[in-house]
Amino acid sequence: MTSLDDLPLRSDLRGLSPYGAPQKRVPVALNVNENSHPIPEPVAHDIVASLARAVLSLNRYPDREFTGLRGALAQYLGHGLRAENIWAANGSNEVLQQVLQAFGGPGRSLLGFVPTYSMYPILASGTGTRWIAGTRDADFELSPATAAEQVRRAKADIVFLCAPNNPTGTPLSLETITAVYDATDGIVIVDEAYAEFAPDGAPTALTLLPGRPRLAVSRTMSKAFAFAGARVGYLAADPVFTDALRLVRLPYHLSALTQAAAVAALAHTAEMLAMVDDIRGQRDRIEQELPGLGYRPYRSGSNFVLFGGVDDPQATFEALLAEGVLIRDVGIPGHLRVSAGTEAETSAFLGALARVGRAGSVAAPGGAGEANKLVP
Amino acid sequence: MTSLDDLPLRSDLRGLSPYGAPQKRVPVALNVNENSHPIPEPVAHDIVASLARAVLSLNRYPDREFTGLRGALAQYLGHGLRAENIWAANGSNEVLQQVLQAFGGPGRSLLGFVPTYSMYPILASGTGTRWIAGTRDADFELSPATAAEQVRRAKADIVFLCAPNNPTGTPLSLETITAVYDATDGIVIVDEAYAEFAPDGAPTALTLLPGRPRLAVSRTMSKAFAFAGARVGYLAADPVFTDALRLVRLPYHLSALTQAAAVAALAHTAEMLAMVDDIRGQRDRIEQELPGLGYRPYRSGSNFVLFGGVDDPQATFEALLAEGVLIRDVGIPGHLRVSAGTEAETSAFLGALARVGRAGSVAAPGGAGEANKLVP
Repeated sequence: MTSLDDLPLRSDLRGLSPYGAPQKRVPVALNVNENSHPIPEPVAHDIVASLARAVLSLNRYPDREFTGLRGALAQYLGHGLRAENIWAANGSNEVLQQVLQAFGGPGRSLLGFVPTYSMYPILASGTGTRWIAGTRDADFELSPATAAEQVRRAKADIVFLCAPNNPTGTPLSLETITAVYDATDGIVIVDEAYAEFAPDGAPTALTLLPGRPRLAVSRTMSKAFAFAGARVGYLAADPVFTDALRLVRLPYHLSALTQAAAVAALAHTAEMLAMVDDIRGQRDRIEQELPGLGYRPYRSGSNFVLFGGVDDPQATFEALLAEGVLIRDVGIPGHLRVSAGTEAETSAFLGALARVGRAGSVAAPGGAGEANKLVP
Repeated sequence: MTSLDDLPLRSDLRGLSPYGAPQKRVPVALNVNENSHPIPEPVAHDIVASLARAVLSLNRYPDREFTGLRGALAQYLGHGLRAENIWAANGSNEVLQQVLQAFGGPGRSLLGFVPTYSMYPILASGTGTRWIAGTRDADFELSPATAAEQVRRAKADIVFLCAPNNPTGTPLSLETITAVYDATDGIVIVDEAYAEFAPDGAPTALTLLPGRPRLAVSRTMSKAFAFAGARVGYLAADPVFTDALRLVRLPYHLSALTQAAAVAALAHTAEMLAMVDDIRGQRDRIEQELPGLGYRPYRSGSNFVLFGGVDDPQATFEALLAEGVLIRDVGIPGHLRVSAGTEAETSAFLGALARVGRAGSVAAPGGAGEANKLVP
């Protein structure tokens, strides 16, 4: 029997496990910050019609420059952005990987402020970029002074700012972003994957792009546009920045189906974003109700809530799973993360959490299958 | 005005241009080895139905392990392969990039035999892998002795064998593949992107997989399955090999749309591959007719033909373009490459080539717009 040790794998990959949350079939999946609202039916019809047109010429390579999609994304973002300011790839992970291929890599470094999106160090490793783990203030906040001081000290080639931050939900001020930009000669990426869930009128780093060619703002259609299955991430930056990414992208990296589906969805921005208000309402509800259950939620500008005060996260996770509710243990001691779902899903989560009580100590340890189902 | 010099681009990328053939709108496009037959209508209907089902749950992340697609590809390939033998990504370029991320990278090297697929050195560069350009025998052939001797000398960590070879069309014997495998402790990839266009009964490296865990055979749906727009490349190897690729793939790298479209197409293998016979017939016709026009075609096991005896490739290219026929100057002095199209497209190419005559010296130099349209 062959084993991985028999293959000449890179030494830095030996012993690693693939990234990824468990993909379980459960009644209520609130673990990966998906948008749990399906795409509205009239929009789905238009997407399918657009896909059907694309299938007719699927024998040909797709538009390598995805011009239509870039234009549609620019129009959606506004702020005077044009097609040449936009770049897109198969999920924002691929966008960020391309940024590291162009500006990072061997001999270069990437600074992030942990706890933050767990893919950042993995993307660094996959591109040979050295990962530097910066720290945060109390309650996972990141002040201009704290951030800028670490940026100056680390002298990193690239800084990733997750705004709002995953997995903590913490919003980030424009002052911190400009302080970081001014403290480095390197690339600064503001990862706004969850930006649409911020309060109305909240600032976006898109307003900071003019005159800052080393700044880029990444987004995704996975969350606000309920498009996680379609894999469409993108960023906005100076046209010179997006030109640099053309040097490292694989030719034809975005399929004709991806381009067709995304352009069709972007033509229905109003209907797609209507779901965002519902989700923000459920997020606010989670934040309001968790203290009554004895937990401490952090302020969130995203579609999920991190909460502390969990005596035994693994036990609470398993007890909720036994109730059919899947959330996420993000590895922060005493904490768990839950995505805001539909009203019914959010009720299921809050009800289950109330039933399992301050569960950790009560629930039986072991796998989901063995975990006792706790009843009120 | 910001320029690329104002950004901290990696030094090895400075001055490069993005890879890619021109994407021109022309009546007869025979430049990128596409399958110029659209997907048959009944198959297209099933693909659209499959896509429509996928759109219903597009708000959720796709199956990260693309289990259904792996199973369908295994069944298509046969040779006793199972889902765990199969890996897939967004085009075989991404599959090969993942191979280099797992087994190549800084401090490691990749050997290929030029002229060969021009993406290989680009993929090496993008992953920090050192590219070693091996050589071929006369007429771009590659004998076991020639290949094995260079493999032993180069001590490369990875060897890419393109079979049949792009851009020359040259078939590769199983003897050369086993000689290469036996001459190295490294990874050997046989890139069979065009394998379906080989003569009936021609050998495939798939038969060599048992007992060779360092060997992988890559394929694509772009050509035989007329799926270039969908971006589906894949490989077959020992399950341990595909497991290694899970360490470097981005999570959810294959969209739900890609998976749905590919699985639907693979359920219609017979109809999809019916086009292959037509294309092989047109390729044979090109090989038969070119000598009469004064050119020297090489033997081809693929859907394209490389031909020599071109006095001025650039001039012939431009003269054909002025006739509405786009082919490819692959950078081999005295040579051009043409894809086998439909019968009508192939006739258009052969007719235009006859009209431009031994054109190089006759056609006016300059861009396509200025090139004189030559008449018989």
